[in-house]
Formats: sequence, structure tokens, C-alpha cells
Amino acid sequence: MEYALIVAGGKGLRMGGELPKQFLPIGGKPVLMRTLEAFYAYNPEIHIILVLPHSQQSYWTELCAEHSFSLPHTVADGGETRFHSVKNGLAYVTTPGLVGVHDGVRPFVSQEVIACCYELAAEKKAVIPVIDVVETVRHLKGEESVTVSRDEYKLVQTPQVFDADLLKQAYEQPYTSFFTDDASVVEAMGVSVYLAAGNRENIKITTPFDLKIAAALLDSCLI
Amino acid sequence: MEYALIVAGGKGLRMGGELPKQFLPIGGKPVLMRTLEAFYAYNPEIHIILVLPHSQQSYWTELCAEHSFSLPHTVADGGETRFHSVKNGLAYVTTPGLVGVHDGVRPFVSQEVIACCYELAAEKKAVIPVIDVVETVRHLKGEESVTVSRDEYKLVQTPQVFDADLLKQAYEQPYTSFFTDDASVVEAMGVSVYLAAGNRENIKITTPFDLKIAAALLDSCLI
Repeated sequence: MEYALIVAGGKGLRMGGELPKQFLPIGGKPVLMRTLEAFYAYNPEIHIILVLPHSQQSYWTELCAEHSFSLPHTVADGGETRFHSVKNGLAYVTTPGLVGVHDGVRPFVSQEVIACCYELAAEKKAVIPVIDVVETVRHLKGEESVTVSRDEYKLVQTPQVFDADLLKQAYEQPYTSFFTDDASVVEAMGVSVYLAAGNRENIKITTPFDLKIAAALLDSCLI
Repeated sequence: MEYALIVAGGKGLRMGGELPKQFLPIGGKPVLMRTLEAFYAYNPEIHIILVLPHSQQSYWTELCAEHSFSLPHTVADGGETRFHSVKNGLAYVTTPGLVGVHDGVRPFVSQEVIACCYELAAEKKAVIPVIDVVETVRHLKGEESVTVSRDEYKLVQTPQVFDADLLKQAYEQPYTSFFTDDASVVEAMGVSVYLAAGNRENIKITTPFDLKIAAALLDSCLI
């Protein structure tokens, strides 16, 4: 069984508006619907678990009705942090298989990246998509900073795909603030994570700047 | 005296087309003209040195005529690497003052960032604009990779602004491949570089993806 655990816990405070960012429309359709559609396009049999703050769930239901959005999915309650949200979602993973954890505000993940991460995870058990850093990178050390080789660094995207049992076991660990993504939770158990190629368009929409880029990507032939 | 040394040495091969990327139009106007305009908007008295491959200079002259682009600037020959291009341009820095070295393909640098970098450089002698990393960062170590704290890393932009004498002295050093930007050349002399806040829209246009984003930024109220 393949699961996609879509995390949309964001309060949207960084957008400066009232509407949480996962609900904002791009090309007339809310970001989150585009994200769910990407996973169904990859596998129409996939089991989608959408983690949403409880206070936003009725709004989501209305939005689905308004947009005649009928792709099947299970809604789970968001938690205090991303860690707790994922943990809540994992309660709905009830059979062996693979779980891809994906940011709700990354609607532009490519079909190739989704397929590659799930395929590789079937073999390696823990796979994350990454892209190159295109800018010069500086490493801060106290008051000073030094240029480091950007070839040695990668930027991490989602979906982060794991063996379901492994991921559930990892999320039994006590929470620490070092858990910045799912890979770091799994690695805390001493398990190695494998890197796959992400796609540059797979941006995380968290600011008005990102939303503008998203609209441009949708308009273009790049998506 | 304030100088802006605009480096447009790119062959544009990464765009996949024939036209070097600095000449591509955004909103009908070539990228490079927008970049020069940004520095004139900051200071109409600034002395601009544009470093261009010799083979592209006649095309640039035609382009300026076509667009009635008449902002005064000195054209210098591009070199084998960025280091050699900057060095060629520095030959036209003939009076004490400040030199800001800027990528020709970064037309969206904000007026605030330009002003801040020059002002701070008057005091600190070496200033570069940086922005936060918004993604999770992994550090590759041989076959393995580990999550590192993204708070400890910054992405470097331009203009990188220096005391003119200091920068000219730094560029007298023999070239090494470790010189990835001007800051690294100056630091090789044991001089500290100060960080200023960059602006996220100040992207380096090097791919079709970037060009699409650039068009969107121009259309929006964000520039």
C-alpha cells in the first residue's frame, strides 16, 4: 500500500493575510487541492492522509464543495508542531507499505520526483529529494562567517518517503527541536537516508513572493 | 567616488538558446539594462564599468541604440573566468572610493540593499548581502549526508562592495579556483567581510526557470 501524508499545518501567518497559505488559490484552485492531485496523478490507488488543524477542517470541507473536489482522502488533526502533525497522521497508516510525507504547500512536485522517491524507498526504506544550491554559501561561526563549497550542500524538499513501519517506529521517539524534517526523525534512530533528485519548481509556498512565483510557474510551460 | 562593476561575462550556454542571458528581455527590456538602471537610480553620479566578453560588445552597442539606452558606462573586456573579468574591470577604477561588484544578471537588487551595502562598506571596507536559507540543508560527507542547522548558513548575493584600494590589492593575488566570489578573494588576504541583508527578489537569472520568475516579479507589485 502506498500512503501520502500531506501536512498542511501552517497557520499562514507569514502570508500577512487571513487565509492560511494552503488554501490560497493559484490559477483559481487552492494550493492544497493541486498538491493532492499530484499524488493521485502518480497513483490513483494511493491512500491520502491530509493533516489539517482542527479549526480549519470545516473550511476545507466547504472549499471542497465549492470546487467540486472529490478525490478521496482522510483528514487528520494537526498538532502543536510538524512532528506532532505527522505523528497524528501516521495513526491512519494501518497496513505495511510506503509513506510519503509531503508539504501541503508544495503543489509543483513533479511526477518523476514522486515516482522516483517511492520506487527507491521500496528498496532503501528512507528517501528524500534534494536539489543543488545555486548561490554561494556562507557558514556562520559566531561573529565570523566563511565561504564553504556549495557542492557539499543540498537543499531538501518533499515527499520524504519511508517504509511505513520504520517511520511509525521513528515517530515513537520523544520530540526534540532537532527534528526539522522526517529524515532527521528517522536518522535519530541511526538509519541512513538516501538522496534522490528533486525538481526545482517544487517550491514551498510560504510568502507572497513564493505565491507570485507559483502563479508564474502555473502560467508557464515549465509545470 | 562610487563605482559599480557589473560583470556580464556569461556565455549564456545554460539558457539553451543563442542569446547570452544578460541580453534576454524581461518586460521588453534586456536584463543588463535593468541592472545598470538599478545602480543609476541609487546614485546618478555612480561610475559604471560593464565587463562584457569582447565578442559581445558590438551586439551590446546595437542593443543600446535599439532601446535608446544612453546611461553612461565604460565597457571592459571579459576574461577567462569571473576573477579575470573583475580584474579587467578594476583597471578602470582610477580614484579612491568604493567599488560594488554586481552580477549583470541580477536586475532585481533593491535600492535599499544597494544603499545599505555601500554605506556599510564606507565604514567596514568589505560588505556582502546575504539571505536566509528557507529549506532544510544537508551537508554531504562522502557517501553519507547529514542535516545541518540552516540558521548557520546564508546564501550570498551581490553587490559585494569594497574599499577600492583593498579590492584592487586583493585582485593582485594569483588566481585559484577557490575564488568563487569577490568576498573569497578579499578574505584570502586575511580581511574580514561583513554581512548585510539582501533581498529575496535579487535572483541570479541563469536558467529558463529563473527567467520565468523574473517576468513574474516584474509583473507583480513586488519589484
